[in-house]
Amino acid sequence: MSSNSFGKIFTLTTFGESHGSAIGGVIDGCPAGIAIEIESIQNDLNRRKPGQSKIVTQRKEGDKVEFLSGIFDGVTTGTPIGFLIKNTNQKSKDYSHIKENYRPSHADFVYDKKYGFRDYRGGGRSSARETACRVVAGSIAKLLIKPISIQAFVSSVGNISLNNPHLISDYSFIEKNPVRCPDKEVALKMENLIKEIRKKGDTVGGVVTCVIKNMPVGLGEPVFDKLHAHIAKAVLSINAVKGFEYGSGFGGCSLLGSQHNDIFNSDGTTKTNFSGGIQGGISNGMDIYFNVGFKPVATIMKNQNSINTKGDVVKIVGKGRHDPCVVPRAVPIVESMAALVLADFQLRNNNSKI
Amino acid sequence: MSSNSFGKIFTLTTFGESHGSAIGGVIDGCPAGIAIEIESIQNDLNRRKPGQSKIVTQRKEGDKVEFLSGIFDGVTTGTPIGFLIKNTNQKSKDYSHIKENYRPSHADFVYDKKYGFRDYRGGGRSSARETACRVVAGSIAKLLIKPISIQAFVSSVGNISLNNPHLISDYSFIEKNPVRCPDKEVALKMENLIKEIRKKGDTVGGVVTCVIKNMPVGLGEPVFDKLHAHIAKAVLSINAVKGFEYGSGFGGCSLLGSQHNDIFNSDGTTKTNFSGGIQGGISNGMDIYFNVGFKPVATIMKNQNSINTKGDVVKIVGKGRHDPCVVPRAVPIVESMAALVLADFQLRNNNSKI
Amino acid sequence: MSSNSFGKIFTLTTFGESHGSAIGGVIDGCPAGIAIEIESIQNDLNRRKPGQSKIVTQRKEGDKVEFLSGIFDGVTTGTPIGFLIKNTNQKSKDYSHIKENYRPSHADFVYDKKYGFRDYRGGGRSSARETACRVVAGSIAKLLIKPISIQAFVSSVGNISLNNPHLISDYSFIEKNPVRCPDKEVALKMENLIKEIRKKGDTVGGVVTCVIKNMPVGLGEPVFDKLHAHIAKAVLSINAVKGFEYGSGFGGCSLLGSQHNDIFNSDGTTKTNFSGGIQGGISNGMDIYFNVGFKPVATIMKNQNSINTKGDVVKIVGKGRHDPCVVPRAVPIVESMAALVLADFQLRNNNSKI
Amino acid sequence: MSSNSFGKIFTLTTFGESHGSAIGGVIDGCPAGIAIEIESIQNDLNRRKPGQSKIVTQRKEGDKVEFLSGIFDGVTTGTPIGFLIKNTNQKSKDYSHIKENYRPSHADFVYDKKYGFRDYRGGGRSSARETACRVVAGSIAKLLIKPISIQAFVSSVGNISLNNPHLISDYSFIEKNPVRCPDKEVALKMENLIKEIRKKGDTVGGVVTCVIKNMPVGLGEPVFDKLHAHIAKAVLSINAVKGFEYGSGFGGCSLLGSQHNDIFNSDGTTKTNFSGGIQGGISNGMDIYFNVGFKPVATIMKNQNSINTKGDVVKIVGKGRHDPCVVPRAVPIVESMAALVLADFQLRNNNSKI
Repeated sequence: MSSNSFGKIFTLTTFGESHGSAIGGVIDGCPAGIAIEIESIQNDLNRRKPGQSKIVTQRKEGDKVEFLSGIFDGVTTGTPIGFLIKNTNQKSKDYSHIKENYRPSHADFVYDKKYGFRDYRGGGRSSARETACRVVAGSIAKLLIKPISIQAFVSSVGNISLNNPHLISDYSFIEKNPVRCPDKEVALKMENLIKEIRKKGDTVGGVVTCVIKNMPVGLGEPVFDKLHAHIAKAVLSINAVKGFEYGSGFGGCSLLGSQHNDIFNSDGTTKTNFSGGIQGGISNGMDIYFNVGFKPVATIMKNQNSINTKGDVVKIVGKGRHDPCVVPRAVPIVESMAALVLADFQLRNNNSKI
Repeated sequence: MSSNSFGKIFTLTTFGESHGSAIGGVIDGCPAGIAIEIESIQNDLNRRKPGQSKIVTQRKEGDKVEFLSGIFDGVTTGTPIGFLIKNTNQKSKDYSHIKENYRPSHADFVYDKKYGFRDYRGGGRSSARETACRVVAGSIAKLLIKPISIQAFVSSVGNISLNNPHLISDYSFIEKNPVRCPDKEVALKMENLIKEIRKKGDTVGGVVTCVIKNMPVGLGEPVFDKLHAHIAKAVLSINAVKGFEYGSGFGGCSLLGSQHNDIFNSDGTTKTNFSGGIQGGISNGMDIYFNVGFKPVATIMKNQNSINTKGDVVKIVGKGRHDPCVVPRAVPIVESMAALVLADFQLRNNNSKI
Repeated sequence: MSSNSFGKIFTLTTFGESHGSAIGGVIDGCPAGIAIEIESIQNDLNRRKPGQSKIVTQRKEGDKVEFLSGIFDGVTTGTPIGFLIKNTNQKSKDYSHIKENYRPSHADFVYDKKYGFRDYRGGGRSSARETACRVVAGSIAKLLIKPISIQAFVSSVGNISLNNPHLISDYSFIEKNPVRCPDKEVALKMENLIKEIRKKGDTVGGVVTCVIKNMPVGLGEPVFDKLHAHIAKAVLSINAVKGFEYGSGFGGCSLLGSQHNDIFNSDGTTKTNFSGGIQGGISNGMDIYFNVGFKPVATIMKNQNSINTKGDVVKIVGKGRHDPCVVPRAVPIVESMAALVLADFQLRNNNSKI
Repeated sequence: MSSNSFGKIFTLTTFGESHGSAIGGVIDGCPAGIAIEIESIQNDLNRRKPGQSKIVTQRKEGDKVEFLSGIFDGVTTGTPIGFLIKNTNQKSKDYSHIKENYRPSHADFVYDKKYGFRDYRGGGRSSARETACRVVAGSIAKLLIKPISIQAFVSSVGNISLNNPHLISDYSFIEKNPVRCPDKEVALKMENLIKEIRKKGDTVGGVVTCVIKNMPVGLGEPVFDKLHAHIAKAVLSINAVKGFEYGSGFGGCSLLGSQHNDIFNSDGTTKTNFSGGIQGGISNGMDIYFNVGFKPVATIMKNQNSINTKGDVVKIVGKGRHDPCVVPRAVPIVESMAALVLADFQLRNNNSKI
C-alpha cells in the first residue's frame, strides 16, 4: 500500500526507478512565503551525486533538479511543489542476464516475492537513487527551519573512528575532503582505507554522525511521535542503515542514573547532554546529536554464488561502477531526513497550545 | 497535535495519565474473527506490571484490563476495541512540593515549555505507565500474526552482557528469573548487580534483544515505510530508549561487503543472517533480531540539584518507590511494539498485488 | 481497517456498541489551555439524548459523560482526552429472535457479509448511539473555535418546510420547541405531523439546516481538502443522512453565472452569498450555511417482510421504542460534526504561511 | 498543510498550476500486476479536455499523459506511478492587469488572504486544470475495480432535467452528443440552451448523475468512513460542486419509513433501491447512484464590478475563452473521483476479517 510519503504536515511523496526516465517528488504542506535558494538545493544534490570524487562510484548523473509548481517569483506559494530529476545515465544496456538472478543482500528476492515480479533494471525502486529526491525536499526543509542548523559528517569507516564526534566544534574541513570527516588526520586514514578496499573489489561500512544546533524547546509529540523516534525512522529508511542511537546511545546503557542525569543550569540548559537534546521525546533546546550506522554496500566487485528464480545456483559476476563505501555520499541524505523531521515537527508544534 | 495513535491499518490510540482515574485505549482496524485469549493478554500485562519481583519498583498496580467494545462472544467483531486499566495506586498525596520543580532528565521542563503548564502528578502523560496500554494491544496483535512468534529478553545490564544474544535457542529460563535473561549464570550476575545498585539508591541501564521467528517473506513497504524503520520508531517511542540496531547492527558497520553479504541457499533462505531478516526494508523470511538500548532510569534515590520554574536552584530529594533497572519490565513492551508493527504490516501487505 | 477516527490534527476516535457496557472516545490533538465547560458539553448531550420529549424515542439513557484524562484543573493539557458514556439502558433482554433476521434498510445484512458475523444486539456498532461521542468532542471543538458560532435547526419535516432557512435571524425559539424549528407556526405543524405519523407506527424524514457565523477568512485546504467537502463527509457519516448542499446548493444549479456571482463590497464581504461562505474550498468570512437531508428512520412499528441469514422470508414485527423522526435529535450532532471540521481546519490553517 | 493527497491505501497526490510548465501526480498504493491500458486513460482525458466540442471552452490543451515510473512492460509494479501532463497552452501573455483584482466568486480573494499572495496567472492552483490529474488516476482505478462499472452523465442543465435519471438503462447515446446526456431529445434541448446562454456571454449550472453497477457487498467502513461520505467528499472537492445526494436523496426526506424501506428478496437483493446501494455506509450489492450539483461557472463574458487588493472598486472585463456550462466536461471527473474512492475501499475491505 501507499508508503512513498513521509511526514504528516510537511510531506514528501517520491516516485521513480533508477532506470526509468526520471525520478521526482511532491512536497506538500510547505508554508507560503519561503524564498527558495536553488543554489543551496543543487549544492546538497551535488554532495550526494555519484562521480563527485575518486572514492565514490564513477557513474555520471547530472542530478539537476527541475521545479514544476509551487514556487512563484522565487517564493513558495503554499501549493504543492512538484519536481523532477531526469535519469541521464540509464544506459540502454541489456539487463536480461540478471533478470532471473537474485543478488546477495540486495532487495531482488523480496521484491519478487512481494510483488510477483520486479523491475530488474539496476535495482529499480530499491536503488538508492531515490534518495536524491529526499535531498531536494530536505534542502527546502532546511530553509523552513532556520536558524536551526544541521551538520552531518563521517565519524567512522571500518575500524577507523573519531572519538566523541558530537563534541567536535570545527566543521570547516568536512567539505574539503572526499570522506566528509571533520578531522584531517582521521580523514586521510579513512580515505586510504576506502581506496585500499576498493582496489580489492570490496566494500566497507561506516557511521555518520549528525549534530543539530540552535534547537528551540518543544519539538516532538508524545507518546508515539517522540522526536527521536521519528528521526530514527527517517534515517533507517535510508538504504543500508543498520542502527541508530542518539545522545549517550548504546554507550549510555551501561551507565548509572547518577552519572547519566543532566543537571540543569538556571537558564534551563543542562551541564551535560547525555540526553542528546531530547527529553520525553521533546527537544529541550540543547544540541541534538545522533549516530547512523551503515553496512558495507552489497554490490561488490568479487564473484559470488547466488540463486536464480528457480533456485539454481548461479554466479554473480562483480563488474561495473560501484561505491566502495557509502557514508561520504550519505552525509547530505542524513541531513535531509533530519531536516524533513524537524520541519514537520516545527509545524506540528504550532498547535500545542492556544 | 494528535500523536497518540500508532499504526496505519491496525491502529492503537491511547490516553491517560499516571495519576488520573484510568488509562486506556482504542484498537481500531483489527479484523473480525480473532478469538481473544484474555489470559494471554493479562499475562503480558503481569510481565510489565510494577511489584512483580524484588528488583523492580514496589508500587502496586492491579493492571487489570477491562474491554468495553469490539469483542462479542469472545471473538473480535471488526469494530473498535475500547479498553480501560484503572489506576488503583494514584495516592491522593500532595504533589505540590514538586509542582514547581523540574527533575533532571525527566520530561517536566519540556512539557511545561511546550504546553504552557503540566500535570505534575507523577509525570502525568510522560510516565511509562501508558505503556501498559501498548501491552494490551500488542498482545492482541500477537494473536493476529500467528504463527509468527516474538521473544524478547534482557541481553545486557550495565557492563554485564550476553554474547551473540540472537543466537540463543533456549528461551525456557527467561520467565523463570526476575531479570528475564535466558542464561542462568549471566542472569544471576545481572540480578546481583541490580540489587547492589538499588541499595545505593542508583539506577542502571541495559539492553533488550528481540528475536522474531516464523516470519513470512514480504512484510515491509518501500521506501519510507521499511519494516525495520517502523520497528525502530516503535521501540524508540518507549520511555528511556536511546538506541536501536538490527541484524549486524553497529557491529556490521566495520565489516567488509564480502564478509557481510548473506549468500542464498536454493530455497531462498540464507547461509548467514547479517541482514537480520530484512532486505530492502522487506522481510526475507529469516529470523528478525534487534537490540534496544535503555538508559538508566532518571528517578534516583539520591539528592540532586535542579531548578524550579523560576530558575532557582532547588534540591530534588530522592524518595519513594522506583525501578533500579527498567529492562526486565521493558521486555513485554518491546515485544508488544514489535507485534503492533508486524500486525500493521501484515495487513498492509495484503494489498501488494492483485 | 481503522475508520473510527475523524480529523487530521484535532482528531476524535470513538468506540462502543449500543448494547455493550459503555461507549466512549479519545480526543487527540486538542491544544493545551482550553477551559472546559462541562455544563455546555452535558447540555449538548442532553439535546441529543433519547427521552427528552414526546416526539422522540422514549428509551432512557443517562448519557452522562465521564472524562478520564487530558484535563487538569479544568483546563486541557495537550494530552489525549479520554472519555466514557456508560450504557445504562442495555436491557439484558433476549435478542435471539432477531439474531438470524435482517431488518429492511438497516445495516444487519451488510455487517454480516462484511465481517462474517455481527453483534446483533440492537444494531451494535451501526446504532446511532455512537453519535453521542461525537457530541462530546464537538462540544469541546466549539470551545476551541470561539468566537465562531454554529447553529443548526430543523428546516423541514416531511413536506413541511421553512422558506430560505439560512436567512432566519432569530434563533431564540429553537430550543423552546421539541422539533427544534425556529419558526413558531411551522414548528407546531411539524410537531403535529410527527405525532400523527407516530400514531400510525410510521416514521418520516426531514432536513437540518446549519448556519455558521463569525467565520474567519482562510479555513479550508485546496485541492482535496476543501472546507465544504469535509463538512459533507462529516455530516454524511451521521446515520440516515442522504444529502448535503451548501450555499445556493442544488437550487443554484439552474441559475445563470450573472445571477449567481457574489459581487464584492470594498471590505471583502459580498453583497449576496450564493457561495455559502466558501470559495475555492476556503472560507471567505461570510456565513457558511448548508442543508443536511435525513431519510425516515428504518425502524417502524409496522410488520414488514424480510429475510433471515438463510434467505427464508421472515416477518419483522414492529415493537419497542423508536424515533418517529430523527431530525430534532440530529440538530446537536450536525453542529458537532461541523465544529469538529472547523476545529481541525483552524489548526491546519495555522501553518499556511510563515 | 498537506492537502493534495486523496485516499488512504490507493492514494493520489497531485501538483501543478494552470500556467506552470506542467501538472502531474503520484499514484501510490496501486497493487502490482494491473495491465495498464494507456488508450483508455487517454480516452478519459480527452472526454475532459478543453476544445472537444462547440459547447465547451475553445482553449486548446493537448492533455497528453506521460508516465515516469511504476509501470514496467505495461504492468503496474507496486511502486509509485509518477506522471506528467505538460501545459502547452500557457500563453506568455501579460496577467498584470488582473494581478491586483479579485474576480467575483473565484478563489482569488481567499488565496490571497490565506497565503499572503497568490499565483495570479489564470487561477493558479485553484484552476480546474488540476482535475486532469484526477482523471488519469481515476482511469487506473477503474482497471483495478473491474468488473465494477461507473457511468456518469448529465441529467440537468439549467431548468432542463431528466426524470429518474438513475433508472435509465441505455447509455449508448451519452458519448454521442456534446452534452453527455443519455436522452436524445433532452440532450438537444440542453445543447441549445447552452448555446443560447453562451451567446449572451453568460453561464449556467447543471447536475451530473452517476450510476455504479456490479458492486460487491461490503465496501465502506463504519463509522466515519462510510462509503457515501467519502464519495461526497470526493465529488465536492471538484471545482464548482454545490451539492451531493445519493439514493433517494433530498427527495427521500419527505417520505415515510414504510414507503422508503427496501424490502429484501431472498437472494439479498432488494425490491426497491431507495438506499442507493449503501446501507450503514457499506455497499449492499445493489446499484449505487448519486447526483452532483454544479453551480454556473464564475467566469462570464459580461463586465462585472469587483474590488482590487486595496478595496477599490474595479471593473472585471469579460473576455477570452470559457466554458458556458461545466457539466459535460465534468462527467469523466465525477467518474474518476468515484473510481478513486471505490479502489481505496476495495483495498481497505481486504482486511475486514481473517
